[in-house]
Amino acid sequence: MSAFDLKGYLEAKRVVVEESLKGHLATLTPSVETRVAQAMAYSLMAGGKRLRPILCMAACEAVGGDPETAMKAACALEMIHTYSLVHDDLPAMDDDDFRRGRPTCHKAFDEATAVLAGDALLTSAFHLLALDRGPRAEVTLDVIRLIADASGAFGMIEGQMRDIEAEGRALDLGSLRELHGLKTGALIRASVESGAVLGDAANGEREALTRYAEKIGLAFQVTDDILNVEGDPDLMGKGVGTDAEHDKATYPSLMGLEESKAYAKQLVEEAVNALAVLDERANPLKALALYVVQRQR
Amino acid sequence: MSAFDLKGYLEAKRVVVEESLKGHLATLTPSVETRVAQAMAYSLMAGGKRLRPILCMAACEAVGGDPETAMKAACALEMIHTYSLVHDDLPAMDDDDFRRGRPTCHKAFDEATAVLAGDALLTSAFHLLALDRGPRAEVTLDVIRLIADASGAFGMIEGQMRDIEAEGRALDLGSLRELHGLKTGALIRASVESGAVLGDAANGEREALTRYAEKIGLAFQVTDDILNVEGDPDLMGKGVGTDAEHDKATYPSLMGLEESKAYAKQLVEEAVNALAVLDERANPLKALALYVVQRQR
Repeated sequence: MSAFDLKGYLEAKRVVVEESLKGHLATLTPSVETRVAQAMAYSLMAGGKRLRPILCMAACEAVGGDPETAMKAACALEMIHTYSLVHDDLPAMDDDDFRRGRPTCHKAFDEATAVLAGDALLTSAFHLLALDRGPRAEVTLDVIRLIADASGAFGMIEGQMRDIEAEGRALDLGSLRELHGLKTGALIRASVESGAVLGDAANGEREALTRYAEKIGLAFQVTDDILNVEGDPDLMGKGVGTDAEHDKATYPSLMGLEESKAYAKQLVEEAVNALAVLDERANPLKALALYVVQRQR
Repeated sequence: MSAFDLKGYLEAKRVVVEESLKGHLATLTPSVETRVAQAMAYSLMAGGKRLRPILCMAACEAVGGDPETAMKAACALEMIHTYSLVHDDLPAMDDDDFRRGRPTCHKAFDEATAVLAGDALLTSAFHLLALDRGPRAEVTLDVIRLIADASGAFGMIEGQMRDIEAEGRALDLGSLRELHGLKTGALIRASVESGAVLGDAANGEREALTRYAEKIGLAFQVTDDILNVEGDPDLMGKGVGTDAEHDKATYPSLMGLEESKAYAKQLVEEAVNALAVLDERANPLKALALYVVQRQR
């Protein structure tokens, strides 16, 4: 596994994802440069790790599928992730001025445009998913339900609601874990699972990938909290120390910083172990698990 | 056609739509009464004419389909319509305090909850659409694309953006027609077309229904503008005279009130004429065209 070139893999995947996002955006928005289309492109093409699409394609590959099969779902997942950031940044929500080193959508445009651009990205995501026709229409519908479930009132949206409700309140570790399981975990899990479904995973493979996804989803959030304590604001494109300022419940604040790091490491080990039933085609996923906690942004 | 009991038809359809909406909402939101689920139910079950779902089912019937086949799409269309109202009412958008005689969602809850409830209604709509599986998976995907197209950056969302951009600016009749064709026309057309697709319409039938839908979509908006001049605020559950107050371009302001009424009547005639290729199963749609301009709310 040490021989696996993760950096090269991430970069290659990032390039195809960005190309594909650009192409889909062009067909899913008016060719005249409308304000909504500009705002959608501004937020969608603002860089970012593209972690969810890469996980989706890597999961598809891990069960022997062609990652191209998962490309539409991968791009749709990134559109959903981006819409959630655009809406979460709104003044009525987290009220953030910067994202990925640039003004947030409502700062670069205005609030009305940001609400509509988010709505349009969400709508475009489902449009894109439904473009997968042909003999696999049934599989496409499975993936649409899976992603809608993870991003809706049972998943990501409920997580954001709880995050807002939690402001200024003490949370215990169980509630924090549940909150993040919904807010970020559900979509990460859906990214891996939709890749597995599109790659025609066998039952045992699908279960292994679900376990893997749950562990890395959690590790991702623990690491986010750690980066908010000791990350480099220049690398991250956003401020650090903001959680402590807002008296927010985080893993470091509830477990301690060193314990949080040990916990993240343990989660990654568990994620990698979950993939034992898969062959070397799962190496990218294993490397991605390490990346989730070693990343600096 | 005069013998057709539209009032009874509308009431019967409204009842099955509301039952179905309630049922789907229960399965698409957490069983514990979360804040987001409460806000979704508050706005979705606030009454309303249920015009879009009824058009969808009536179009399905008009081409000989079983209206039950169109029920999920009908409910999804109402969810999308409701989400658009919740977001359009936000302070950053149209800033409305009342809707259907009750406080708007962000007034009854708060802005963050209203943004999330709208997002969740939109997500649930696509989830619901994707529940139509089985041998008709391909048709389901056609309907998802059709509805996503009408409600996204090429349709409803672009219409709302133009409506906001038009504030305080003079619009000519052509721009006004285009704006409303996007803002309300696109989803009304998608309601009729998805019913036609789900009822397995023949090509000529589908074209007739599309022409019908375009005419009544326009008639609907002209009538809305007329009601804003001379409607009964008690029946409408919202204020009248607000367009004139805000110096908004409307059909009455651009064409005159009497001319607007004549125009609406002419559009209805054209809508009814478009259905000439269909048999008596299209009578509900014909009656609905009249209702669109004769309604008092």
